[in-house]
Amino acid sequence: MDCLPKCEANYVPLTPLTFLKRAASVYADRTSVVYESARFTWGQTHERCLRLASSLRSLNVVKNDVVSILAPNVPAMYEVHFAVPMAGAVLNTINTRLNATNIATILRHSGAKVFLVDCELVPLAREALAILATAVSGSCAAPQVVVIDDIDSPTGVRLGDLEYEELVRRGDPAYVPEEVRDEWDPITLNYTSGTTSEPKGVVYSHRGAYLSTLSLILGWEMRGEPVYLWSLPMFHCNGWTFTWGIAARGGTNVCLRNPTALDMYRNIAEQRVTHMCCAPIIFNILLEAKPHERREIAAPVEVLTGGAPPPAALLQMMESLGFHVTHAYGLTEATGPALVCEWQAKWDRLPAAEKAELKARQGISILTLADVDVKHADTMRSVPRDGKTMGEIVLRGSSIMKGYYKDPEATSKAFRDGWFFTGDVGVVHPDGYMEIKDRSKDVIISGGENISSVEIESVLYRHPRVREAAVVAMAHPRWGESPCAFISVKKNSAGKTDDVKEAEIISYCRKNLPHFMVPKKVEFMADIPKNPTGKILKAQLRAVAKNFVWSENNNGPSSSSDKKTSKEVATDLSRYNPAPQEQQVLALSRL
Amino acid sequence: MDCLPKCEANYVPLTPLTFLKRAASVYADRTSVVYESARFTWGQTHERCLRLASSLRSLNVVKNDVVSILAPNVPAMYEVHFAVPMAGAVLNTINTRLNATNIATILRHSGAKVFLVDCELVPLAREALAILATAVSGSCAAPQVVVIDDIDSPTGVRLGDLEYEELVRRGDPAYVPEEVRDEWDPITLNYTSGTTSEPKGVVYSHRGAYLSTLSLILGWEMRGEPVYLWSLPMFHCNGWTFTWGIAARGGTNVCLRNPTALDMYRNIAEQRVTHMCCAPIIFNILLEAKPHERREIAAPVEVLTGGAPPPAALLQMMESLGFHVTHAYGLTEATGPALVCEWQAKWDRLPAAEKAELKARQGISILTLADVDVKHADTMRSVPRDGKTMGEIVLRGSSIMKGYYKDPEATSKAFRDGWFFTGDVGVVHPDGYMEIKDRSKDVIISGGENISSVEIESVLYRHPRVREAAVVAMAHPRWGESPCAFISVKKNSAGKTDDVKEAEIISYCRKNLPHFMVPKKVEFMADIPKNPTGKILKAQLRAVAKNFVWSENNNGPSSSSDKKTSKEVATDLSRYNPAPQEQQVLALSRL
Repeated sequence: MDCLPKCEANYVPLTPLTFLKRAASVYADRTSVVYESARFTWGQTHERCLRLASSLRSLNVVKNDVVSILAPNVPAMYEVHFAVPMAGAVLNTINTRLNATNIATILRHSGAKVFLVDCELVPLAREALAILATAVSGSCAAPQVVVIDDIDSPTGVRLGDLEYEELVRRGDPAYVPEEVRDEWDPITLNYTSGTTSEPKGVVYSHRGAYLSTLSLILGWEMRGEPVYLWSLPMFHCNGWTFTWGIAARGGTNVCLRNPTALDMYRNIAEQRVTHMCCAPIIFNILLEAKPHERREIAAPVEVLTGGAPPPAALLQMMESLGFHVTHAYGLTEATGPALVCEWQAKWDRLPAAEKAELKARQGISILTLADVDVKHADTMRSVPRDGKTMGEIVLRGSSIMKGYYKDPEATSKAFRDGWFFTGDVGVVHPDGYMEIKDRSKDVIISGGENISSVEIESVLYRHPRVREAAVVAMAHPRWGESPCAFISVKKNSAGKTDDVKEAEIISYCRKNLPHFMVPKKVEFMADIPKNPTGKILKAQLRAVAKNFVWSENNNGPSSSSDKKTSKEVATDLSRYNPAPQEQQVLALSRL
Repeated sequence: MDCLPKCEANYVPLTPLTFLKRAASVYADRTSVVYESARFTWGQTHERCLRLASSLRSLNVVKNDVVSILAPNVPAMYEVHFAVPMAGAVLNTINTRLNATNIATILRHSGAKVFLVDCELVPLAREALAILATAVSGSCAAPQVVVIDDIDSPTGVRLGDLEYEELVRRGDPAYVPEEVRDEWDPITLNYTSGTTSEPKGVVYSHRGAYLSTLSLILGWEMRGEPVYLWSLPMFHCNGWTFTWGIAARGGTNVCLRNPTALDMYRNIAEQRVTHMCCAPIIFNILLEAKPHERREIAAPVEVLTGGAPPPAALLQMMESLGFHVTHAYGLTEATGPALVCEWQAKWDRLPAAEKAELKARQGISILTLADVDVKHADTMRSVPRDGKTMGEIVLRGSSIMKGYYKDPEATSKAFRDGWFFTGDVGVVHPDGYMEIKDRSKDVIISGGENISSVEIESVLYRHPRVREAAVVAMAHPRWGESPCAFISVKKNSAGKTDDVKEAEIISYCRKNLPHFMVPKKVEFMADIPKNPTGKILKAQLRAVAKNFVWSENNNGPSSSSDKKTSKEVATDLSRYNPAPQEQQVLALSRL
């Protein structure tokens, strides 16, 4: 074939920034963002982003500089997803559940030049900046701080001179955005909270963000003019790409400072919400809402959720309230969902329990992934499509991250043999739908059998008195490894928890699990240890389990001092103090 | 930011071939293709494509070779859209309405190595190959011919030794497709039928085809599991990308040898068709169906149409039958639709006539176009969004063609100043929706005013006796140019056409058009001259109009011999003999 070279007309770098430009042109008068009494059109949002981008440039932000933000889902948080890359910079959204030390680490590691802070989070940011100041050497300057005052009810809280609305006001609406010359250029930097290691900075390219956005709209079949409730933090994989996706669809972003039952129901009813994404914990908040917090839901709300498969009963309750749930699986490194449990028309006729079982599977690859497979980690051979044989889930495609920022070792560990290794273990069902079984490092190998800790945990969670459960491997002289369960217990009517005994839990497991999967040891704890984002620290639990010594005599393990060991763990982790509900947030573990 | 290089896991070339691979994996048992008694699943279609690709390799087809096909919308025509690029080759689908000379020209220009021919088109192909043989020099070998016998009712017709099903049968199902290493590599080559010049070979890249496919699914909001009726030829911009799109959506392709009313209604009813694309002529076929050809349409069928805006009355009739029409604008060079008239919820409340008016606009850019604009051709300044000021429609984005094959001159003429010039003239309405007014070379400039020939033609078409109409510029001593109308007339009840007079048509136009737009001359013809694909040859009409001499005395132009000139034109064009309905196919002019 002829050599037909690329030119500016037929090879334009892919970037989500085109979605905003297009929205401003063709949906100019449609509502883009709503937040309490504040309301913008796409024309206005575009202009505000141009102004902010020009103001960032005037703060000496240049190409590839990092701009960090610590904020809930307020309008400014939405706008920076366009304004920061329009200034040529890279957006770093920081998880608001982190503590000051973590935040300081991220600010230092990313080398943030500007740090935008929501007014309510000023105390946390001040603390983080103080830690950063003591740690920062002469070579690394502290970021310029901009406070985002509440646009609906200004507080007057400041941290330095700069305020967000003032930057918008004094910006240039005729600013010409920094051109994206290479679609491989970075657009955002999102730190994952590791359970064992330092946070890692996941870098997305313009190309990856663009393609993921299209994929998610397609995979979820989101139609035009959606009204999208921001119940999912935008800092999670940039709102699983819907920060950009709502612009692509000309929809309305319903911003929300806190996902409380009252505020969610109120916005759903008043703004006529059509779509929302969330962690399963949000289901509980919606279901446990008090009567005065509830509002009737006029038209079905599409809900995309990730992480722990929602149990059938929960799904049915949600659907009866007017929510239509779709289940997805993803991870920060894959720019959010990589698998979506795409519904098939023929399943409509099945009984509810079977439907829920199908819906609980993680599903099939989104369109922009070139390939998904489940492979034996050693041989790299694909597992059979039998719904039983476990292997590691591996991904390939242009929606996978560029890599970990300043971490070549972790990057090269994640990318091997042309694949991205998720570290998640799953099976492929005969129909091609995948189901996640565990984190690869959490799989228990007992007598050559792979046991999914998640499977045992889900059985434990169904016990009426179990509040939290985590299962890890402990050494076993005969089987190599055996499951060891850590649980916390709900109080009984007398406010007690000590009436639940190990033997009862084991006997319950015997009834509900194959024998080889039954925990050989059950350890009770007041709270299961978690990191600040709510992920259970299984590495810590494994350390505890190491102390358990198997004794053939009493047909079970004994510990020199179980209570003490648990307590030690609790003490080690006392600096973390997540709210109880945050245990569930990790349900979004890989999202 | 860190330098994070691309790797095989996170930078995978974009190609529609992934859609088939994915469909075979996750929609393996769903019906992919239906044609009369033949029915395949996605697993089978994938295997058939692998087999065919391996057989093409065994015919010495190598990377970037051209494989041509001359076939209606039968299953083989669908399969080659994957199998040919899986062999590393470039697919050239030839318009079945062309004559033998045109086909020979395309075979020679493309250098086709293999030529697949549907059994019904063997006589035409034989003729084309004979012309090619006389023209081919020693340096250019004739293509290997493969006959595609009808898979439902084999005819036994052959042209040489090779038959399609035999190639599929003897192919290797374990064939590993040629890897797409560069998404800029060509995937298809589609010749446009020029009205004035030689056909031009439009080359699509894998990237362009991939992105256009996603765009069209998004723009049309096509949900999962569509049942798609092939009423649009796949050789038109590769079925406006739905050849690849139906695989992406895991849908069913309902193949169709001829879009007759009987076969369309039968398939819509029996296969429960949900979607179809077509030229407006198909509306007439559906509306004019005889009672025995009709079937009731149980659920609404989404119809995407392009070209001439469907009049309100036609739209209403279509909708009353159960078709829901969306209007688009595109061109071969833009891989099909570039603008889609995206419907807005608020328009639902408008009266039918206003709705039709809104729906008749060509609309807003598809998502993967980086930019669309309407510009003054001289100054390159954007026209105001007033719905009145005309300018040339220009496009930028990765869904625009690579260029014209072996035609650097035409390529560099089409790409200028970072834009692709469509050659179409339009306006932008205040809401950002665009409306096409004319081909730029067909605009009539009268006293400094731009007059759209299409606008005059659409008024003429509404006259009850006008069968066909075409308007071109003729010289005018005062205004520079004036409109000149050519029309053919429907017979009256006595079977006559000569009762319609020029004065009546001009007086009718005076009532329905601004004075300056009224044709100064009306010329009657038995048939308006067209090229083999049904495009009206305005260049020929302009040549005729040149002979008209304006005479101030009779306040109208006179011609030395109008009839003679028309006849001459008719004689010149006698080798073209399009069916009358093909005049309307050009309504898809730019698609």
